[in-house]
Amino acid sequence: MTRKIGVIGMGHVGSTVAHYIVANGFADDLVLIDKNESKVKADALDFEDAMPNLPFHTNIFINDYSLLKDADVIISALGNIDLIKQANGNDRFAELSNNVKAVKEVAPKIKNSGFNGLIVAITNPVDVITSIYQQETDLPKEHVIGTGTLLDSARMKRAVAAKLDIDSRSVKGYNLGEHGNSQFTAWSTVEVFDEPITKLAKENGLDLANLDKDARDGGFTVFQGKFYTNYGVATAAVKLANVIMSDSKTELVVSNYRKEYGVYLSYPAIVGRNGIEKQINLDLTKEELEKLQYSADFINQKFEENK
Amino acid sequence: MTRKIGVIGMGHVGSTVAHYIVANGFADDLVLIDKNESKVKADALDFEDAMPNLPFHTNIFINDYSLLKDADVIISALGNIDLIKQANGNDRFAELSNNVKAVKEVAPKIKNSGFNGLIVAITNPVDVITSIYQQETDLPKEHVIGTGTLLDSARMKRAVAAKLDIDSRSVKGYNLGEHGNSQFTAWSTVEVFDEPITKLAKENGLDLANLDKDARDGGFTVFQGKFYTNYGVATAAVKLANVIMSDSKTELVVSNYRKEYGVYLSYPAIVGRNGIEKQINLDLTKEELEKLQYSADFINQKFEENK
Amino acid sequence: MTRKIGVIGMGHVGSTVAHYIVANGFADDLVLIDKNESKVKADALDFEDAMPNLPFHTNIFINDYSLLKDADVIISALGNIDLIKQANGNDRFAELSNNVKAVKEVAPKIKNSGFNGLIVAITNPVDVITSIYQQETDLPKEHVIGTGTLLDSARMKRAVAAKLDIDSRSVKGYNLGEHGNSQFTAWSTVEVFDEPITKLAKENGLDLANLDKDARDGGFTVFQGKFYTNYGVATAAVKLANVIMSDSKTELVVSNYRKEYGVYLSYPAIVGRNGIEKQINLDLTKEELEKLQYSADFINQKFEENK
Amino acid sequence: MTRKIGVIGMGHVGSTVAHYIVANGFADDLVLIDKNESKVKADALDFEDAMPNLPFHTNIFINDYSLLKDADVIISALGNIDLIKQANGNDRFAELSNNVKAVKEVAPKIKNSGFNGLIVAITNPVDVITSIYQQETDLPKEHVIGTGTLLDSARMKRAVAAKLDIDSRSVKGYNLGEHGNSQFTAWSTVEVFDEPITKLAKENGLDLANLDKDARDGGFTVFQGKFYTNYGVATAAVKLANVIMSDSKTELVVSNYRKEYGVYLSYPAIVGRNGIEKQINLDLTKEELEKLQYSADFINQKFEENK
Repeated sequence: MTRKIGVIGMGHVGSTVAHYIVANGFADDLVLIDKNESKVKADALDFEDAMPNLPFHTNIFINDYSLLKDADVIISALGNIDLIKQANGNDRFAELSNNVKAVKEVAPKIKNSGFNGLIVAITNPVDVITSIYQQETDLPKEHVIGTGTLLDSARMKRAVAAKLDIDSRSVKGYNLGEHGNSQFTAWSTVEVFDEPITKLAKENGLDLANLDKDARDGGFTVFQGKFYTNYGVATAAVKLANVIMSDSKTELVVSNYRKEYGVYLSYPAIVGRNGIEKQINLDLTKEELEKLQYSADFINQKFEENK
Repeated sequence: MTRKIGVIGMGHVGSTVAHYIVANGFADDLVLIDKNESKVKADALDFEDAMPNLPFHTNIFINDYSLLKDADVIISALGNIDLIKQANGNDRFAELSNNVKAVKEVAPKIKNSGFNGLIVAITNPVDVITSIYQQETDLPKEHVIGTGTLLDSARMKRAVAAKLDIDSRSVKGYNLGEHGNSQFTAWSTVEVFDEPITKLAKENGLDLANLDKDARDGGFTVFQGKFYTNYGVATAAVKLANVIMSDSKTELVVSNYRKEYGVYLSYPAIVGRNGIEKQINLDLTKEELEKLQYSADFINQKFEENK
Repeated sequence: MTRKIGVIGMGHVGSTVAHYIVANGFADDLVLIDKNESKVKADALDFEDAMPNLPFHTNIFINDYSLLKDADVIISALGNIDLIKQANGNDRFAELSNNVKAVKEVAPKIKNSGFNGLIVAITNPVDVITSIYQQETDLPKEHVIGTGTLLDSARMKRAVAAKLDIDSRSVKGYNLGEHGNSQFTAWSTVEVFDEPITKLAKENGLDLANLDKDARDGGFTVFQGKFYTNYGVATAAVKLANVIMSDSKTELVVSNYRKEYGVYLSYPAIVGRNGIEKQINLDLTKEELEKLQYSADFINQKFEENK
Repeated sequence: MTRKIGVIGMGHVGSTVAHYIVANGFADDLVLIDKNESKVKADALDFEDAMPNLPFHTNIFINDYSLLKDADVIISALGNIDLIKQANGNDRFAELSNNVKAVKEVAPKIKNSGFNGLIVAITNPVDVITSIYQQETDLPKEHVIGTGTLLDSARMKRAVAAKLDIDSRSVKGYNLGEHGNSQFTAWSTVEVFDEPITKLAKENGLDLANLDKDARDGGFTVFQGKFYTNYGVATAAVKLANVIMSDSKTELVVSNYRKEYGVYLSYPAIVGRNGIEKQINLDLTKEELEKLQYSADFINQKFEENK
């Protein structure tokens, strides 16, 4: 009965998520939640000041968990960017204990609201946090999804596309594993001009290691320039929410629970209204499988230490 | 030949303007300019990281004034929010001398590019700044427009709509004069439920003075909550740019040069590809005319001191 | 729980309604119903052939009334354009007995599905048909709405705007009464350049009678050119559906039940998720009131003959 | 300098193209051309009747070739559906001599306008017609593009997606050759779940021949149901126009001139503001290469007979 989205955490990312939704009429009802009452009130008022000049109407509610009961999707964007700044922007784990604590406070409130929709987690370190959300809300594992390397894959596509002067949407492929330093571009999945990029790289002297670094460091570069990143990740999160609400069963690389690794990590899956509708099995190289195992082990260790 | 927009100043407002354009495909080419090279690079990269998950493509260029030559619209969002913070958020003139100086640096570069499109100024104090832009670029007066009270009128509509539990788009009317403390809601122009709000106020005990204050203080309230305002004003500016590019000849209340007052101030006009296509003449009350004269005098004095 | 719309009748109007929804992602689930099974299947397939090149996904279902149970809005676009063609396009009552019969077949199926959302009727003659839908479904009167003169008011705005070379969105005002030949432009409600058009007409020699005719005959002119009309009315209907789903409480002129006239006729109202949330009371001239009464009587007679 | 599109031919397809553009604000200026003056006037009026209820403004001009001078893109949708109906909907060549004649009338008028943008041809048989347009306008070969199997590839994706219960956008691959009966799905290019569909087909008993037929017959099926097809092809054409205007350099399968075959036929290419920016070279199987040669020979013969 009309679309309802909750956004928890109204920092740089959460407010950009909310603005993107409001400006495009993606939701009818939007519930914004933040401990900083004056910030969430300011953003809500700012959105309402935008509406007379927008073609869409969105009903905005603030700091009322009970309204999440019948939400379709909750997007978690909470975090503490100051902790990341102190870590110089390159360690998503600087936020870990702070964010685990915050999620353990938030999750019972979500659960108590009677919410039985899907959770989209952006909060970092996102793979661990997605696990914590699932654990604390008791929602089915396939109903809790992290944006994961949907963003990093976009960064890889951007880097490859810039090199070849094409649309980043015309690059196919994935970054896998942790949305963090142990991730990697699975070059065996990357295709451009309808051929494997590995073939193209050989023929044209493309330096894949360099491109991989460019993708992985993308967030850091943006961070160095403005001390936060928001547009790329907010766009990824809203796309994921729209795919869920429209039940489009789109293949996306997101953080989802993979039994064989025993953790949430980024790996492509078919996403629909029931969350992870089907898991894909990639034909990775031995080296990629090792990297993925390493990434999974890293996530698992962090999860065990903090669950 | 396709739509090209320049955005000068990539602070909170400029980057929100750019994001709104990118996320909706409103422009084909977007030229972003800021003295803080690492900030504008970070935003550009962040937008490009968003694109693989967006349906639209925008070509983003940074810090190249020569590319403004064939731009349709330049949106000026430069400013120094720190000066506003020091003034506690309630005095747009705290930025004046800083911004006049910045505009006097920027305008010759715009002029030298060969630009002959339209300028949309958001930079505060917007009425004075719009005058300065016109003076320094030698563009026709009707080709330089300030967002002015397009935002404040939206705030007034939001305040009235909230009181009556209706869509803010169903409130008609204007805030006039300076986009600053001397502005006022011209209640004689405001209609709700197809009747003058003054009539409704009498019948229902609506406190117009209070609503006026709510509208005028709207920006301050948002500012107090997050130390800047961005979504409302960015939406107003992009709407204005779209009205210009599509030549829709829409009536909008914006800062435009009124001969009878000898200054730029906000007053409704028909806006199209030639900027101010026609000026409206409101049937204001004597009291409103006095307030408008006062506001005009105030703007004029500030302009004379800084031109 | 995501947006669901039903469209009954997939002729020129219904298929344009559905296409507009699909192309803009306004609904997640779309239930298309038509007795002509091969036509509705063809349109559904054509929409699905469009989707790989669209940014939005819509789940399309055909000819299954049971799926309307949890729809937010049902849009009725059924009709028989051949009957209108035989009447030379200028008499919406040529369809009356055919459409009353069709609605009496359709309404019990809607009711039996358990549907308790809102009905938006486009089917002509729309005021009578809206009454019949309400009578046959037992839905609250305020939950059944006809597009009525939302279209004719748009035509009036288009005619006035063309005359004055402005955006039709900058013309305010309404056509009232029957969506048919007894309707009229209530010139006392029409404003341009922030003044009553009656004043402007006197000063500038605008011929209002001519503009009125232009608006009233608009549909006929379009009909003469292509033997149906679809884009204007489909846009009006989808706007109405969006206003309902987003609960925006927007003032719209639509066909709604007015107690004082004892019939459905077009008159402005505040529209939200509960349908007609509040009825407006216009300050009409004596002549306008007489025209409205005449229109109401005409609708009432046709309803009594066919209910 | 803002976006300008011409649409030539306002039948089912051309009017749907124009509506999709108007409803989404994809162009600022739209020039509609049709020999049937009353039809194009009716559609233009219908679009203008829609605008007061739309968020975008589009300036609509009719039957004035001189306005095409500075258009970015001309979309050719002319044709004579009655000839197709007589041929029972399954032979796009039934229109050939009629459409060649029409293009030879239209092309000099385009040329004389001074137009130097890009032509997007939908008119069937599209590969031959695209050649004729290029020949008659003397535009560079890479500036004249046919929608070709962009539509048929969408149909193949729709058919595959329906079989596997996934989003058609998650199917990768192409139909190649003639947009007509000699086309074929190049299964070696089709991937689902990140694996070749040929592998999946073997493992899961997918009948590719059947899916191929489903894709190829898609248009026929839609045609049988409503005696024309419009939504799929109009969406493809507008996507192509948007890719051109935004210079996104997206890989699309469209009808473009391939030197090795000496004809226009559908084969993937990178498309941007300069039209065909780069041609892709697929690694096709021997059987696919033979089919493509057969298709090329067929197009070539038809072109030679009609050029």
